[in-house]
Amino acid sequence: MAYQYKRLDKNDAAVLLVDHQTGLLSLVRDIDPDKFKNNVLALGDLAQYFKLPTILTTSFETGPNGPLVPELKEQFPDAPYIARPGNINAWDNPDFVAAVKATGKKQLIIAGVVTEVCVAFPALSAIEEGFDVFVITDASGTFNELTRDSAWRRMEAAGVQLMTWFGAACELHRDWRNDIEGLATLFSNHIPDYRNLINSYNTLTSGK
Amino acid sequence: MAYQYKRLDKNDAAVLLVDHQTGLLSLVRDIDPDKFKNNVLALGDLAQYFKLPTILTTSFETGPNGPLVPELKEQFPDAPYIARPGNINAWDNPDFVAAVKATGKKQLIIAGVVTEVCVAFPALSAIEEGFDVFVITDASGTFNELTRDSAWRRMEAAGVQLMTWFGAACELHRDWRNDIEGLATLFSNHIPDYRNLINSYNTLTSGK
Amino acid sequence: MAYQYKRLDKNDAAVLLVDHQTGLLSLVRDIDPDKFKNNVLALGDLAQYFKLPTILTTSFETGPNGPLVPELKEQFPDAPYIARPGNINAWDNPDFVAAVKATGKKQLIIAGVVTEVCVAFPALSAIEEGFDVFVITDASGTFNELTRDSAWRRMEAAGVQLMTWFGAACELHRDWRNDIEGLATLFSNHIPDYRNLINSYNTLTSGK
Amino acid sequence: MAYQYKRLDKNDAAVLLVDHQTGLLSLVRDIDPDKFKNNVLALGDLAQYFKLPTILTTSFETGPNGPLVPELKEQFPDAPYIARPGNINAWDNPDFVAAVKATGKKQLIIAGVVTEVCVAFPALSAIEEGFDVFVITDASGTFNELTRDSAWRRMEAAGVQLMTWFGAACELHRDWRNDIEGLATLFSNHIPDYRNLINSYNTLTSGK
Amino acid sequence: MAYQYKRLDKNDAAVLLVDHQTGLLSLVRDIDPDKFKNNVLALGDLAQYFKLPTILTTSFETGPNGPLVPELKEQFPDAPYIARPGNINAWDNPDFVAAVKATGKKQLIIAGVVTEVCVAFPALSAIEEGFDVFVITDASGTFNELTRDSAWRRMEAAGVQLMTWFGAACELHRDWRNDIEGLATLFSNHIPDYRNLINSYNTLTSGK
Amino acid sequence: MAYQYKRLDKNDAAVLLVDHQTGLLSLVRDIDPDKFKNNVLALGDLAQYFKLPTILTTSFETGPNGPLVPELKEQFPDAPYIARPGNINAWDNPDFVAAVKATGKKQLIIAGVVTEVCVAFPALSAIEEGFDVFVITDASGTFNELTRDSAWRRMEAAGVQLMTWFGAACELHRDWRNDIEGLATLFSNHIPDYRNLINSYNTLTSGK
Amino acid sequence: MAYQYKRLDKNDAAVLLVDHQTGLLSLVRDIDPDKFKNNVLALGDLAQYFKLPTILTTSFETGPNGPLVPELKEQFPDAPYIARPGNINAWDNPDFVAAVKATGKKQLIIAGVVTEVCVAFPALSAIEEGFDVFVITDASGTFNELTRDSAWRRMEAAGVQLMTWFGAACELHRDWRNDIEGLATLFSNHIPDYRNLINSYNTLTSGK
Amino acid sequence: MAYQYKRLDKNDAAVLLVDHQTGLLSLVRDIDPDKFKNNVLALGDLAQYFKLPTILTTSFETGPNGPLVPELKEQFPDAPYIARPGNINAWDNPDFVAAVKATGKKQLIIAGVVTEVCVAFPALSAIEEGFDVFVITDASGTFNELTRDSAWRRMEAAGVQLMTWFGAACELHRDWRNDIEGLATLFSNHIPDYRNLINSYNTLTSGK
Repeated sequence: MAYQYKRLDKNDAAVLLVDHQTGLLSLVRDIDPDKFKNNVLALGDLAQYFKLPTILTTSFETGPNGPLVPELKEQFPDAPYIARPGNINAWDNPDFVAAVKATGKKQLIIAGVVTEVCVAFPALSAIEEGFDVFVITDASGTFNELTRDSAWRRMEAAGVQLMTWFGAACELHRDWRNDIEGLATLFSNHIPDYRNLINSYNTLTSGK
Repeated sequence: MAYQYKRLDKNDAAVLLVDHQTGLLSLVRDIDPDKFKNNVLALGDLAQYFKLPTILTTSFETGPNGPLVPELKEQFPDAPYIARPGNINAWDNPDFVAAVKATGKKQLIIAGVVTEVCVAFPALSAIEEGFDVFVITDASGTFNELTRDSAWRRMEAAGVQLMTWFGAACELHRDWRNDIEGLATLFSNHIPDYRNLINSYNTLTSGK
Repeated sequence: MAYQYKRLDKNDAAVLLVDHQTGLLSLVRDIDPDKFKNNVLALGDLAQYFKLPTILTTSFETGPNGPLVPELKEQFPDAPYIARPGNINAWDNPDFVAAVKATGKKQLIIAGVVTEVCVAFPALSAIEEGFDVFVITDASGTFNELTRDSAWRRMEAAGVQLMTWFGAACELHRDWRNDIEGLATLFSNHIPDYRNLINSYNTLTSGK
Repeated sequence: MAYQYKRLDKNDAAVLLVDHQTGLLSLVRDIDPDKFKNNVLALGDLAQYFKLPTILTTSFETGPNGPLVPELKEQFPDAPYIARPGNINAWDNPDFVAAVKATGKKQLIIAGVVTEVCVAFPALSAIEEGFDVFVITDASGTFNELTRDSAWRRMEAAGVQLMTWFGAACELHRDWRNDIEGLATLFSNHIPDYRNLINSYNTLTSGK
Repeated sequence: MAYQYKRLDKNDAAVLLVDHQTGLLSLVRDIDPDKFKNNVLALGDLAQYFKLPTILTTSFETGPNGPLVPELKEQFPDAPYIARPGNINAWDNPDFVAAVKATGKKQLIIAGVVTEVCVAFPALSAIEEGFDVFVITDASGTFNELTRDSAWRRMEAAGVQLMTWFGAACELHRDWRNDIEGLATLFSNHIPDYRNLINSYNTLTSGK
Repeated sequence: MAYQYKRLDKNDAAVLLVDHQTGLLSLVRDIDPDKFKNNVLALGDLAQYFKLPTILTTSFETGPNGPLVPELKEQFPDAPYIARPGNINAWDNPDFVAAVKATGKKQLIIAGVVTEVCVAFPALSAIEEGFDVFVITDASGTFNELTRDSAWRRMEAAGVQLMTWFGAACELHRDWRNDIEGLATLFSNHIPDYRNLINSYNTLTSGK
Repeated sequence: MAYQYKRLDKNDAAVLLVDHQTGLLSLVRDIDPDKFKNNVLALGDLAQYFKLPTILTTSFETGPNGPLVPELKEQFPDAPYIARPGNINAWDNPDFVAAVKATGKKQLIIAGVVTEVCVAFPALSAIEEGFDVFVITDASGTFNELTRDSAWRRMEAAGVQLMTWFGAACELHRDWRNDIEGLATLFSNHIPDYRNLINSYNTLTSGK
Repeated sequence: MAYQYKRLDKNDAAVLLVDHQTGLLSLVRDIDPDKFKNNVLALGDLAQYFKLPTILTTSFETGPNGPLVPELKEQFPDAPYIARPGNINAWDNPDFVAAVKATGKKQLIIAGVVTEVCVAFPALSAIEEGFDVFVITDASGTFNELTRDSAWRRMEAAGVQLMTWFGAACELHRDWRNDIEGLATLFSNHIPDYRNLINSYNTLTSGK
């Protein structure tokens, strides 16, 4: 049976940010905190840049899990925001599923904390309902690499596509000519090596 | 063919603890001993918390392999306990299989030492007989990471789902509202970072 | 359904070198620079040694991404060279696809920078069109191991075969008797341990 | 000049536990949380077992740093407890220094969070005042290994002796015949491998 | 479609040792030399212990690749020994395939150096011809972990089962009661931790 | 001879930032780029927060080494800026040394790229002239860990004190009561885990 | 003050093997078991080859620590053997010190389990008494790398020289011409890579 | 006592290359072969570029250790070449010491295989005789990191300065203005990241 390349399409994708809460973030140890913070904010910027409908959800944010990281809250002031009263799998929450379906998109880009629960559970549920699911692995975190690896394998076996935010941005953008400035700014803000390339280039070409 | 999300269900799951013996534990080097001990005991507590039927089995416990770790023995005084006289694959032992079938459960949560033998062999046998198998990777240990990785791949190819104890607990619990206190206690006892979050929270909110 | 061994065939293979540019190379951090440079040049030598049609392509080479590494440019002066004006996925560029199809080969050997974009995107597109795709993992680089691992899994799920340049060389060559001297030279130039073996051997047998 | 072996002496040693607070612990990433929790509690047990005068101190415990971990608070209900109002170096706090000097001990065993500040600063101050300082490296934690390594070198250059809790226990105990049962219990409670050895041994020799 | 557990059967398995030559061994860097040597000899002992038909083959043993390691040569003086004149894939050598088929076995246990060539190529060819293939990953070695990982994935995708020598021994033996002494000796000779367990046990139980 | 604790003093310290240039930064591979960028900017903020005289210097900034990273240039518009015409050791440049001496400070806090050259050379020269030198290890970078380790040992043997930016900030600040808000902001901006603690705390205590 | 190279001298050196017991060996996790076993046996062979007086000692060998590894017992049937009744530091045992002094040697080569206790304690005591101490780091083991590193630094600060068995053998031997065959055999038996070199060489030069 | 910065001086330095032989190189596993080969050749180029007197020596080059790597032999056709008949420490060979002294240099730059023997032994001997010794750590290799670390500490304690080839080149050169082209070529040939910077720069500034 022929393979069909399911490719991210900025007109058919929504972003689900699950449980990036200040308390839960202290559990993340499979990725360095500086890098992880950068990746999560990069994914937020990506969603905004491509104008993808974005849904925020939290688990027990008035308890030890803590509030959503303020940067995301500020970045998406009008996004659907589902503070789940208890459902661990966000897909078990009808408001969340309704918000997802209201976007009318078939491709779901999911990231969250912790990977094997807050990301994997809704990812598997969404696959079961026929969505195409793209998990952003570097904006999702968990306790350690063993746990991450187990979670990746379970999702992969279900047909989830594993991507990172940079790959997703490139696949959504398709062609630099759509907007050179905008994509370069996204990369410059979140990839120090790319920023250095651009700064070296600008200095040389501007004669400054 | 549509993917079906096989989700852990506390009413349809049994736990099989295979060969966590004091001698065999000295062979485990793919995971740090402090962490491994904690994970195994966490899985024991999980089984008890969710009242899952649990089966204990050992291999040659009167020889160098040593006795079952006493904590597990004490935690499940009434569980079926099959001291296998020689079968390396627990599923080759009719008493063990009978005990499993007597639970009437279709989902088997398996952990043990060492991963590629004591876990993988019964996992593959159980899959062949139509059970859904969930291996708890962080409560299973073996000689080194190369061996673990080979074992995971063999099980994965057979359809085993790889999970960690925290993910299993979350999938079994479904909703915090079923019992906040109980689940939080399980996490606080076995996840130091979570315990810290709870202690910080309690201090601030109790005004203590 | 029986497994069919899709084996590299020097009469049916083309090589695609995607975006090995001096600026982009500074992004590669999942493999040491000395080793990576060696692997890329080894793949170039391999293509030349087996006389495989080779296609070069770059992305925005007049901007911060920088020019193609000069060694490759010099090694393939007559190869099709597609400086893409903006397409991120090389397969979205009709000239590139035309050049690929003009080779008349069914097996595509792909390497590039960065793995999850410049390699994975055309690899998935090519699979979709019915080509057999062999990605040379050690001549492809990206930001870090997490990103690489995500990219490998996505390609693997699509049927891409993951190989390294040494394995590809061996599979293409089939039999040492086709040319001992030539293959040994390729290995000696790019595998220091092999070069040492040959030098020790030559010294002993030449009586020098 | 002849080397003099400065050996821990249970009659001349005090223990200083600096800033093991629930919030600060989330900063510790140079050592796994399960292992770190175990090491800190082991050091507490060691202090109690050898009846060493022990001093607790915290920094800003009513703010984000959080309260002292409850286990230590409970273990040393009568120990001097200095909640520093602002001094980052505990040795800048006169109450703390007074408490240290009141013990009349010349050997100071120090551990805390984070290593390069809460441990290193008082360690260097104490060395300057002529104390012999033993830092328990595995009950002290910090942001990452680079930071830890820098801190160790700075302390080492000042004459601090770097030890782990197990080594300190052995040096304090001197001879198993002083109390076999007590020391074995300390080890069994905090070293899973040792506990396994003891359990295997007991089973075999008790005939159970 | 139901999963069928393809289980190693000592009556239906043959062992293929491919290119464990003194020169080629210097290329192996994905596993420590002490451990690798031990694993290869363990696999030799396993083959002998279970009386599995064993086939030795080498590539260019009069050149820089060097002779077969003498221990294997001595251990299997009567085994078919195919010194291939040039075929890189051993399966391309009719004598080798004839020797394999002459064993009449359907299960092939393969190990060799280097993994992605000397092991993977005949493994894929054998799968294509309908054999069940079990690669012993820890008795196979290659240049680095990236190469190994690529090779494992390619073999896995073809249906190869990845095992280590210990797991293979356990699956072949089935039940300790078949021969306790023999299996324990195999383990004691090649697993230092197991040897220690046995020595501790023997000392305690012999009263020595 | 008594040890004297040479303690950073905000009234006696100057900061030297050596060769943090956009081209040279691509050479840094002993520390992740996200983390390194953060550390360098944190050191800049630290210098500004404590109002420490700061000196910038670059090597060949019109060539491939590239310009100083713009963020530092903007942060210290009035700082002495020595674009060295060729001296590799900044201390060989009389303008640089004059600028250092003009600060009238005895403690020099140095960071730069690459560690073993741009940092170590002036550090050793400054020690020789009687300055107290504190190298900020996590805001200095180089090719790989082997190189870093060699450089650290050479500097350490000369009496350089190795610190990280967080330790330096704490040692300079001495007491939280000097300015809680300011120091907390510095930490919140550059330590994601600390920011999370503060955000959790603020939410709980503000009742928001 | 001029540096004096304290060089191992086969006429002035004794070997102390401390607590290589079957139970304690299960605690060693800073070095792989296959490699560690090899290193310990290599040191035994070294002592025998150079005819160095060798002293064996154990701690509580009738308890969980287990007996001395049988290989060492057999290798040195006539060596002083001090089964310490309780002294943790072997140097606290007068029989042990007497045995050491009876050798009349000034250079002590020490190895044991665990490094920071069984090795470091007698090493520091011996230095204090004026012996030159050479610790064989790769035949000494402990719980983890953090512990090892702390122990090495403490010993180093006291003047202990850290060596590995191969370096010690070379320093003792001085000149290959003293006995080519013997030293080569020692290396061939314990260094697989060296054995391969020798086997390749012998095959080529013997014309076999 | 004031610290004196012993700085490499191209007029007072000689290079000693010890035992870089084709057989011995297969023992080196603390550094990747591609990188190691590059570093050794870089050091050769450095010696030639700065016209430093260079001495080559080998151990048993007609046996399994193999011949000197041909590249070094060709690069220094007129250098003193001491094929030692048996002395393991090159400094025990009077011809070698005579050659060193004949250079009239006080600073010795040493590299070789294996670090703890072929490098450390002559380094310690040379220090004892009053030379200043600079070991090039990244052009010296050995069995593993544990061995390397032990060797570095022993040399460091004796006053050896540990450097890498790049740092040595920079310290010898002092000022880019002495020869920009030459030094840049040395770096471009042996540092891929630097070569990329130069190639990007040249393309942009040449308008090519």
